[in-house]
Amino acid sequence: MNYKLTIEYDGTRYDGWQRQSTTEQTIQGKIERVLSRMTGKDIEIDGAGRTDAGVHARGQTANVHLGFYGSDEEILEYLNEYLPDDIGIVSVERVPERFHARLWATGKCYSYRIGIDSCKSVFDRKYRYPLGKKLDVVAMRRAASDLLGTHDFRSFCGNPRMKKSTVRTIEDILIEELEHEVKITYTGNGFLQYMVRILTGTLIEVGLHQRKEDSMPWLLEQKERKLAGVTAPAQGLCLEQVYY
Amino acid sequence: MNYKLTIEYDGTRYDGWQRQSTTEQTIQGKIERVLSRMTGKDIEIDGAGRTDAGVHARGQTANVHLGFYGSDEEILEYLNEYLPDDIGIVSVERVPERFHARLWATGKCYSYRIGIDSCKSVFDRKYRYPLGKKLDVVAMRRAASDLLGTHDFRSFCGNPRMKKSTVRTIEDILIEELEHEVKITYTGNGFLQYMVRILTGTLIEVGLHQRKEDSMPWLLEQKERKLAGVTAPAQGLCLEQVYY
Repeated sequence: MNYKLTIEYDGTRYDGWQRQSTTEQTIQGKIERVLSRMTGKDIEIDGAGRTDAGVHARGQTANVHLGFYGSDEEILEYLNEYLPDDIGIVSVERVPERFHARLWATGKCYSYRIGIDSCKSVFDRKYRYPLGKKLDVVAMRRAASDLLGTHDFRSFCGNPRMKKSTVRTIEDILIEELEHEVKITYTGNGFLQYMVRILTGTLIEVGLHQRKEDSMPWLLEQKERKLAGVTAPAQGLCLEQVYY
Repeated sequence: MNYKLTIEYDGTRYDGWQRQSTTEQTIQGKIERVLSRMTGKDIEIDGAGRTDAGVHARGQTANVHLGFYGSDEEILEYLNEYLPDDIGIVSVERVPERFHARLWATGKCYSYRIGIDSCKSVFDRKYRYPLGKKLDVVAMRRAASDLLGTHDFRSFCGNPRMKKSTVRTIEDILIEELEHEVKITYTGNGFLQYMVRILTGTLIEVGLHQRKEDSMPWLLEQKERKLAGVTAPAQGLCLEQVYY
């Protein structure tokens, strides 16, 4: 039987989603360990997005093939009982045998939160990048509009040796001015390594008037990572949802 | 000069607001220590509400008499630099010399958050009481309506030796059904020791049908703490605002 898991986590303490031989502190590793304990077998799960170290998730998904170990609700309760407090299973559901969390995903939604004043944001400090400077969101929205649609995003790809296609489609970039913060929400069919963080670093530079708001078409054309902005810190990023 | 501080804190690690000789882990103590460092003098501050151990605040207030040590903004930045990450100063403002944060307060607003399902709520777990059971909010609202207005709240007072008046006025009790939680927001002219937590424990019992929704007038009349519900845990409680 094939199960789809929807997962949320506070990534602060973790070395990212993907299991690694060099560290026990991965989200995938923690979930696999509990599933292995439940079943008495070595269990592997496939996640939809390989979030980086320190990145959070409200709607990560994964799938896992298991025998019968109880109802969906019982599996959910078992996982939540034995997982650390900062990893939670939101739902467990039976899916078709061929369902694959990563390969079947048709899109993803990420949010990035930027603190724009000297407010210490006691309750949000682990989920917000404390820039502490005002941002010109009108300029940022103007720049973001040129990033929408289907483009080769090689300039925004963190992996210089990426051999596969770097063409992706961004459907929406929503830039909101909230109390103490600017929140950017990206929706697209897929994102390259560090792409959301490089897009954010670049848009921040536009918002600080360190980069021109009409320079995105040129930047896309260059296909040169070094010309884009800095990679914004992991803590502001959250994988909100995976679409199927 | 007299300054009003507006303060937020994650109370998880602290033994409450009030300075105590037996522990260094109090919010008041932490703020006084930074102010003493800034001024080179022993500084005492007066807080509006003495929140219990583990209780949070988004809008606690206090006042402090200081000589001139810079602009309001400079004092705010100094405090936020030297305070721990889980205590933040939201604002610093000059107020009349006679202003007293506790004595001048005309009202307070507290919220209490109750988790009602098996969701682990990774991001809210420190700020929500994980009851894990459905609540009948219609019955709770019916009971809450009988608590509004001016009453002797001795049945809801955690201090059995309270000698002063236990008469208070509750202006509003808002009960909201949100995703995964029920949130109760109390607004009134003042609250007795543990009063919000005892009110919440009692309303939870109504919501679980362990106590009748029309029993509040009787309970108020008894003036007997033992007849009210349990004191709900500290972690769900937050001092939202102090009114002047």
